[in-house]
Amino acid sequence: MNTTSEHSQTTDLPVSDCWALLRSVPVGRLAVSVDGRPDVFPVNHLVDHGTIVLRTGAGTKLAAADRHPVAFEVDGYDADSAQAWSVVVKGTARSVERLHEVLDALQLPVFPWQDGPKPTVLRIEPDSITGRRIQVSGGYTATPTHNA
Amino acid sequence: MNTTSEHSQTTDLPVSDCWALLRSVPVGRLAVSVDGRPDVFPVNHLVDHGTIVLRTGAGTKLAAADRHPVAFEVDGYDADSAQAWSVVVKGTARSVERLHEVLDALQLPVFPWQDGPKPTVLRIEPDSITGRRIQVSGGYTATPTHNA
Repeated sequence: MNTTSEHSQTTDLPVSDCWALLRSVPVGRLAVSVDGRPDVFPVNHLVDHGTIVLRTGAGTKLAAADRHPVAFEVDGYDADSAQAWSVVVKGTARSVERLHEVLDALQLPVFPWQDGPKPTVLRIEPDSITGRRIQVSGGYTATPTHNA
Repeated sequence: MNTTSEHSQTTDLPVSDCWALLRSVPVGRLAVSVDGRPDVFPVNHLVDHGTIVLRTGAGTKLAAADRHPVAFEVDGYDADSAQAWSVVVKGTARSVERLHEVLDALQLPVFPWQDGPKPTVLRIEPDSITGRRIQVSGGYTATPTHNA
């Protein structure tokens, strides 16, 4: 479905699609509040039984996330359909100690966006999951369009 | 430069590199605090005279950003070198009314990640800019490595 309108078309995604998209990419961005000021940084993630598991380097940012509300975002662009998409998970992050060895055993992310000698594992229990797909105005498509 | 070590190698980037990377991608993620809870969403951006200009749909998230501290993040992955990178700008966002028409005239982002009939333009005046480049353990490279 292509659009020639001036404004792009937005579609809210069902939760099942959100989970599929969350599984489709290895890296997302974790937003936290540190002393009331927002911060955001890329992290590796996995979907695990209805939760988001993050593995990052230890640090003040992670301390800010542990047991606090967080927002986690993934996005992408499908060139075949000229559709951008994004999914945002909001919930509370909690550090997980025992899971660490399990994740190591699984050789979880081999894409350590966050570096550090003592990786920390956080699990986000979602309060809400929202996703949207946006038909991009002027975006290129794999099929011919009638755009000028 | 490839690495075979267990941990990835992180390099802090000079500010000039951060600006170049900010210019290199059309979409970043804006993190805000709404009633003390973090939120994050993808937005189009431009670099303009040492500031970040965002164009998004109007909404509560934008209202939360206007005249408040925000964090803005871009990231990417260079397959040639197996290096991931990210840049985070922190500062205060302010809505810009008169710039709107200028941006429209420039046909600014043709990639409206955020949709809406009344696009809002925000300008982030940076307080800090930080960037890192990370040699990814196990990342694929365009040149042969000695990894097993």
